[in-house]
Amino acid sequence: MIDFPYLADITLKTDSRIVLLVADGLGGVPHRDTGRSELESAHLPNLDALAQESACGLTIPVLPGITPGSGPGHLALFGYDPVKYQIGRGVLEALGIGIALQHGDVAARGNFCTVGPDGRLTDRRAGRIPSSESAPLCAALDKLTVEGISLSVHHVKEHRFVLLLRGEGLSDRVSETDPGRTGELPLPPKALEPGAGRTAKVVGTFVEHARELLRGQPKANMAVLRGFSQLSQLPSFGSAYRLEPAAIAAYSMYRGLTQLLGMQVLPTGSTFGEEVETLAAQFSAHDFFYLHYKPADAAGEDGDFEGKVRALEQLDAFIPRIRELKPDVLVVAGDHATPALLAAHSWHPVPLLVHSRWTKGQGSAAFNERACRQGALGTLPATQVMLLALAHAGKLTKYGP
Amino acid sequence: MIDFPYLADITLKTDSRIVLLVADGLGGVPHRDTGRSELESAHLPNLDALAQESACGLTIPVLPGITPGSGPGHLALFGYDPVKYQIGRGVLEALGIGIALQHGDVAARGNFCTVGPDGRLTDRRAGRIPSSESAPLCAALDKLTVEGISLSVHHVKEHRFVLLLRGEGLSDRVSETDPGRTGELPLPPKALEPGAGRTAKVVGTFVEHARELLRGQPKANMAVLRGFSQLSQLPSFGSAYRLEPAAIAAYSMYRGLTQLLGMQVLPTGSTFGEEVETLAAQFSAHDFFYLHYKPADAAGEDGDFEGKVRALEQLDAFIPRIRELKPDVLVVAGDHATPALLAAHSWHPVPLLVHSRWTKGQGSAAFNERACRQGALGTLPATQVMLLALAHAGKLTKYGP
Repeated sequence: MIDFPYLADITLKTDSRIVLLVADGLGGVPHRDTGRSELESAHLPNLDALAQESACGLTIPVLPGITPGSGPGHLALFGYDPVKYQIGRGVLEALGIGIALQHGDVAARGNFCTVGPDGRLTDRRAGRIPSSESAPLCAALDKLTVEGISLSVHHVKEHRFVLLLRGEGLSDRVSETDPGRTGELPLPPKALEPGAGRTAKVVGTFVEHARELLRGQPKANMAVLRGFSQLSQLPSFGSAYRLEPAAIAAYSMYRGLTQLLGMQVLPTGSTFGEEVETLAAQFSAHDFFYLHYKPADAAGEDGDFEGKVRALEQLDAFIPRIRELKPDVLVVAGDHATPALLAAHSWHPVPLLVHSRWTKGQGSAAFNERACRQGALGTLPATQVMLLALAHAGKLTKYGP
Repeated sequence: MIDFPYLADITLKTDSRIVLLVADGLGGVPHRDTGRSELESAHLPNLDALAQESACGLTIPVLPGITPGSGPGHLALFGYDPVKYQIGRGVLEALGIGIALQHGDVAARGNFCTVGPDGRLTDRRAGRIPSSESAPLCAALDKLTVEGISLSVHHVKEHRFVLLLRGEGLSDRVSETDPGRTGELPLPPKALEPGAGRTAKVVGTFVEHARELLRGQPKANMAVLRGFSQLSQLPSFGSAYRLEPAAIAAYSMYRGLTQLLGMQVLPTGSTFGEEVETLAAQFSAHDFFYLHYKPADAAGEDGDFEGKVRALEQLDAFIPRIRELKPDVLVVAGDHATPALLAAHSWHPVPLLVHSRWTKGQGSAAFNERACRQGALGTLPATQVMLLALAHAGKLTKYGP
């Protein structure tokens, strides 16, 4: 609810601290055999104890039935209406690897892929080739200039790269070249609006250049592009909520997204344990911390029910360390559900827990979908979570006489 | 939902009667020792019995996390979006004491206060001086004319008064002079928009006049002003819902607010017992009654848990007398929560009960936050309560073919 029109009138600057722990893909659905979800199957002594002293509920990221990507899922939790505010995949990837995007740039997410002799895709990720093989290919593709537009190729990880277009008069209204499944030909880039013709043509030239240059590679013999996007203007998270926010996330996309919202992205390691130590080390320097936990989503995406259970148990083990810091408000939320049963993001409501000095006696017995549904917070749009966090932190004063 | 666009098409004129009993500050949070809220701690045989035959739920006055003042809290219950429709504090106070406000008038809430030798506030309420002392001070300050603007001072109660400005070209976009806490100097009134310069200057003259006149008073040696406001245009409650509404409230602010909505404000006494007898006496003359109960909020604001429990028990004792009148629909609601633990209004959802001939078998075991959360109505925006009341009263016909 960054758009609540009187937010500036009711936000207070205080010393209280909020930690928003986002467990990516947190929610699930019951296993067919046991009838218990991943959260219900996991042994979560610390999260359950926390839930007993918290106000619990469920969040709806976008709308019932709408499955969000990580971008909209996170934007919603930060209070940005994910239908009004959008961030393209290319922009997210670019920011995530530290590219200093300029307004007007167009970024696209690129995948090396494998095509057969007939040109049809046989592997959309080129066997997830190791970075040691893909980075030199990126270097070879880099630094092309077409019609006054400079194109650069930035390696991300394994088969993933970012294509960046910089120059005058670019548009991001260009169609994807990734057909989205094997057995199909890469698609030609097309202008989706009249002003995008030149951009589409430049992208087409890049695609042909890549086809020529990659020909003969054993795996990465072609590349596909999607998520053409430009920087959009998003309200500053810190200004809107009157906070000094910090983001702690090992994964590039979440770093990019929070940077775009104006959060200070703290240097951290590649594990959640390192993230938590970063939180501890920087705890006095900020009054809001976004802390990202990825493994539950990764296991869910793989359809690995047991793996997701273990990932949740591993998260649980870090809860005491976070509570030791005594944040005034600790929120545990998810950007979306990733049920192992679906092996994908889903539309299901996501467990939520808000812990503060005001929540004693309102708790739920456990932290899972079923218990949270009966919780004190009920089911609410994810966009309202920040208002609750601020209220519990004593950072919102009364609205109206 | 006074803005439901087809309200005029679906409202019916019938003989049925609705009583909306608003228990101010109704909701609470659990006591730290007992784990039970004020409602859960109180002995409420009549409200609990009523809840068992009613449809229960929780209302959200504005948004989760947003703490409403009494103005927005009441507007929401009457179906007015409290973000779209606003009433200034000065206007509310002025209407509450029976000032016949005209469009263009500017009203402000004034407080007598105490300042030290350095001019800084030592008591924002001048020790809540008795009306016998403050009324003569109001009379002395009254009837000033500055630059063609007539200023009048109207005593409210104890340290409170209304400053009314009447004349051409006034604006309510003037900043408050109350710094909001002791130890600070009163603030100079400033124009918040270009057209408010003259009004700010006139207010400044009044403030200096008050400073001179009050100098030497033992307690009320200065005055501060806030809530500069003008009448806004609000849709008529009676016209929108096709009702003949009456308001029964002992406290001035609620009388002022309902008058502004076009309700007939009935003369009544200063106690809830007198309010209920007014209801009984006028029961045949109207088809909608707003009945206000204040003591629960007052005790909550004082942080007096036991006092709030007693106030709720005192309300409970009047329920049989209200039911004797056999209203077709009896709604018990709150404009906001006032948990004793917070000693202030809060953002928490508020218990709601709707009783009609259609609610038997849908009841909750008791009338409190926990039971209502599981109730038949779920958790809903307070702005939707009037639609439910009208529906249960048989006053809404089918929408659409």
